[in-house]
Amino acid sequence: MFDTVTVIGAGGRAGSAIAGRLRERGVELLERGGDLVLLCVPDAAIADVAMSIAPGPWIGHVSGATTLAALDPHPRRFSVHPLQTLVRSRGPEQLDGAFAAVTADTDEARERALWLAGTLGLEPFILDDGARTLYHAGAVVASNYLVTLYRTAADLFEDAGAPPEALVPLMRRTIENGFELTGPIARGDWATVDSHLAALHEQRPEIEPVYRVLAEATTP
Amino acid sequence: MFDTVTVIGAGGRAGSAIAGRLRERGVELLERGGDLVLLCVPDAAIADVAMSIAPGPWIGHVSGATTLAALDPHPRRFSVHPLQTLVRSRGPEQLDGAFAAVTADTDEARERALWLAGTLGLEPFILDDGARTLYHAGAVVASNYLVTLYRTAADLFEDAGAPPEALVPLMRRTIENGFELTGPIARGDWATVDSHLAALHEQRPEIEPVYRVLAEATTP
Repeated sequence: MFDTVTVIGAGGRAGSAIAGRLRERGVELLERGGDLVLLCVPDAAIADVAMSIAPGPWIGHVSGATTLAALDPHPRRFSVHPLQTLVRSRGPEQLDGAFAAVTADTDEARERALWLAGTLGLEPFILDDGARTLYHAGAVVASNYLVTLYRTAADLFEDAGAPPEALVPLMRRTIENGFELTGPIARGDWATVDSHLAALHEQRPEIEPVYRVLAEATTP
Repeated sequence: MFDTVTVIGAGGRAGSAIAGRLRERGVELLERGGDLVLLCVPDAAIADVAMSIAPGPWIGHVSGATTLAALDPHPRRFSVHPLQTLVRSRGPEQLDGAFAAVTADTDEARERALWLAGTLGLEPFILDDGARTLYHAGAVVASNYLVTLYRTAADLFEDAGAPPEALVPLMRRTIENGFELTGPIARGDWATVDSHLAALHEQRPEIEPVYRVLAEATTP
């Protein structure tokens, strides 16, 4: 659907995986003048970069947080956000199995966005442009705050003399079990929750608010 | 090291997996009178059940939160806590690959506890009895609050019209990547964080405190 693509920001986390995957799929990457110009630049730069591109080609971005309006004044535009945490130490294979939020304001744009998602190896779903702030907040909660949970638990394990790597099979299985809740709150064992809060208050006061707000959010 | 074991609470989540694994390993399970009496009962019941057992056998519990003193007056005692989320729909295989916290107050008790952990297929580490509250709080953060993170993110996805199952590959990869932080906070993109907080305040006020406290805990 696009024979040639210009990836802007092909050296970044998302851009390098995306450019690599397009190359694997036989799409010709052009330094400039592609039928599609795909912006893989930081969110705050998208609008400025879009403005700098001469009208003509299709234009897209891969940001979860940014609306289509950032691609003004280009009328032929869409967004494909790979819902994945992308790191520099991996290549295009990290797109495999991930979903992608596709946003477009015309049928033709949607069709082209779905083509791009499929070509990248992503499982697309349609996201309304007005819903992307809540969507992106959800992605941050699931991924970035999962890092924070691990780091918090690992700090407590280190204090207790327990090996933090012991947390990994526990966290993996929690996902494998379809997020079935076990543990003291599932059992209604508030004495244990209170003993945790007392110990944190005494020994790790900076963790107490995290524990407390999550305990409240976990309580049915 | 123990030829016969009496598992009390063999119908529960932990007890059924543990009894099943002991049986697989050729350990004889006795209704009463085992060389080891292993309490797989709710935390609040451990002390009462221990008191009701006539002196003589070794006695152990499998609780993460409970100290050895709950096994009074038995002098030959230990604890082996499988660090895993155990569900009724799985069997003994859910112990495979999990770690276990081993607590004992004599060398002989430790040796026997390590034998039990190994027989169950668990990877043991030694936990000080006085450190178990922080240890158990860490396990709750890593496992139970991971459920809460998912549910919170899934609520936001549902509000946004995005499929909650799209979160699963994202969360799995976050673990696979060794909990490397990506996303707006890693980039110092506070405008995006503020836009999330504003949208939550407006549309999901009950989630705002969770997001806020985790954003603060994530900030370097």
